[in-house]
Amino acid sequence: MAVTGSVLGGDRPRVGMVGGGQLARMSAAPAAALGIDFRVLATSLDESAAQVVSDVYLGAHDDEHAVLEFAAGCDVVTFDHEHVPPPILEKLEARGVAVRPGPHALINAQDKAVMRRTLEGAGAPVPRWRVVDSVGEAQEFANEVGYPFIVKTTRGGYDGKGVWRIDSSIDLSSVMSSPLPPGAQWLAEEAVPFVQELSAQVARSPSGQTVAYPVVRTVQTNGICSEVVAPAPGLSDERAVQAQRIALDIAGALNVTGMLAVEIFDTGDALFVNELAMRPHNSGHWSIEGAVTSQFENHLRAVLDLPLGSPRLVAPHAVMVNILGGDVGNLYSAYRHVFARDPGLKVHLYGKQVKPGRKVGHVTTVGDDAEQLLVRARHAADYFMGVIDE
Amino acid sequence: MAVTGSVLGGDRPRVGMVGGGQLARMSAAPAAALGIDFRVLATSLDESAAQVVSDVYLGAHDDEHAVLEFAAGCDVVTFDHEHVPPPILEKLEARGVAVRPGPHALINAQDKAVMRRTLEGAGAPVPRWRVVDSVGEAQEFANEVGYPFIVKTTRGGYDGKGVWRIDSSIDLSSVMSSPLPPGAQWLAEEAVPFVQELSAQVARSPSGQTVAYPVVRTVQTNGICSEVVAPAPGLSDERAVQAQRIALDIAGALNVTGMLAVEIFDTGDALFVNELAMRPHNSGHWSIEGAVTSQFENHLRAVLDLPLGSPRLVAPHAVMVNILGGDVGNLYSAYRHVFARDPGLKVHLYGKQVKPGRKVGHVTTVGDDAEQLLVRARHAADYFMGVIDE
Repeated sequence: MAVTGSVLGGDRPRVGMVGGGQLARMSAAPAAALGIDFRVLATSLDESAAQVVSDVYLGAHDDEHAVLEFAAGCDVVTFDHEHVPPPILEKLEARGVAVRPGPHALINAQDKAVMRRTLEGAGAPVPRWRVVDSVGEAQEFANEVGYPFIVKTTRGGYDGKGVWRIDSSIDLSSVMSSPLPPGAQWLAEEAVPFVQELSAQVARSPSGQTVAYPVVRTVQTNGICSEVVAPAPGLSDERAVQAQRIALDIAGALNVTGMLAVEIFDTGDALFVNELAMRPHNSGHWSIEGAVTSQFENHLRAVLDLPLGSPRLVAPHAVMVNILGGDVGNLYSAYRHVFARDPGLKVHLYGKQVKPGRKVGHVTTVGDDAEQLLVRARHAADYFMGVIDE
Repeated sequence: MAVTGSVLGGDRPRVGMVGGGQLARMSAAPAAALGIDFRVLATSLDESAAQVVSDVYLGAHDDEHAVLEFAAGCDVVTFDHEHVPPPILEKLEARGVAVRPGPHALINAQDKAVMRRTLEGAGAPVPRWRVVDSVGEAQEFANEVGYPFIVKTTRGGYDGKGVWRIDSSIDLSSVMSSPLPPGAQWLAEEAVPFVQELSAQVARSPSGQTVAYPVVRTVQTNGICSEVVAPAPGLSDERAVQAQRIALDIAGALNVTGMLAVEIFDTGDALFVNELAMRPHNSGHWSIEGAVTSQFENHLRAVLDLPLGSPRLVAPHAVMVNILGGDVGNLYSAYRHVFARDPGLKVHLYGKQVKPGRKVGHVTTVGDDAEQLLVRARHAADYFMGVIDE
């Protein structure tokens, strides 16, 4: 259903983004700045992006009719998430719509088994892994790599959902007795003893131009990204370049267009690829204020095959701390306190209803001293979350 | 007419902005980031802001019914321009809508004679001036201040329209034979021999909190702002503080809420107030990328009576060069060249049809060396305008 029609198309292109979450919401600002038309496919008008985007189509990402209708009149279709079924993407391409990233790249972000096979083929370092069809096969894998190890569903996981740490065979039976998401398999994986988690983001255009963002340190809490420091403190230049090289190689090998985030385990001695995302990513929200060109702008420039913007930091450090749904239902009411306390804060609220553990916003600080930036951003996020009250 | 309704109002406020130009368009991004609802009153869906804002009401700013309908459901009403008739603003206030800036402040931005009287009352330095009702009265004024001098209409002028430099009595008769805009008078003013033009911007909240932006140098070409350098190069700290003090005093004396821009003539020896604008202003576009908190975000924070954000520069300098409508009809096509040449450029296109001399976008550069930043931004703007082709 077309809620509002785009007007005055003229010579400017229209980018359509499937999905109405916060990534689409944060893409709207650079789309307006660039002067391009921007359309989202959302499931309801109260979704995060649908609140702020003028050109909203309503429909589900797996409803072929809805996606085709949404895509008609778009010069490029891209994504706020990786869940559009490949047959729909192939139909779009057959109709002449530029799908970026394309279905052959995107399948690697949809299916963790496909991704690991591709990465191994491309020579990227990955933890030992195996698709396992039974508890017995998983136990066999555990006998090889030892406990603890990780069990994941190959499809349908996000923000810690669909991932389990297995400490014993009792855990294993319990986890593998739960139902698999549609089309998913069980994937067993070595638990890499990392000292920190990194994210390496690159943008890549159909012409093959790439830019690499500074490698950042990410901290996950209960499987959800809680904070990001750019650049990763204490990471040697050599290791940072290695991480950027891994991401650039993957982007090229998989023919990714748009933003690619490569989540990496750093063991202190080596780097291992954990997950991929082919879209703007939580680990790059700092770039809105912290980089010359944000990940959202470079995603749009990449999928439009425009020359990419500089990914460099505008200050020595930028820090991002997520606001997760907590005790405070009305996020807006926190502004009076946090803004009065710290006039340098940058806050993004996503317009989402507050539910425990749900990402509802983030706080960014930019400056010289990463520790001080962390203290400031954590304080504000904690206040939004109701963890502290002063 | 309500084009789209806002959804999920919940606990967050809705700011309504009268006017659908580029100032409203650029206000949409910080509104989305802050997680507030944002509505504009535009005259058509192809106006600059209406292209990108989800909640658009269609109607004229001087149509009382349209303005009242638009304002119903807004917690605060503010403005992209200063042309809403005071009786409509007073009716809004009588209905309990917070009008910011209020009609008593705004009248000073609507009528240059009222403004000059108020400024003199507040002790602000202004050029000698007089309302003149005839060519004879204007000649009398000229006999006192000498040629050249300036003639303006008290109302209805913008971007150099409604302003004439008078070099002789022949010019005077010719200018004053043209019809006056509705409600306007002729205003004669001393031509101040300035060495540069400055703009001092402040934000002020209803609670009385104020922040002052770095004072910038503005360059006008044919009466239209063509470029801005922040901070103003070579301006002494003492003079900069004096300009900020003038703007803060005016904001307080006039009870301004939101952004106030004070255009100032710098004669080298003294400062004189030229014009006021009570809204985000062309001289502050650099602040989107160049300041911790943009003028658009601080305008929203001010009219919502939220604590204001830091106005400080994120680098030693920021430069903004306007893109005026020129020979190139398709602005988008310039991206391939200007972005490839300079990955650090920030470009804003307003979605407006290209007409000669019309402001259709701007280019910002941020960094260490003002002269280099100017060269880069001018080059890109010239390329967009078709002045150069490489």
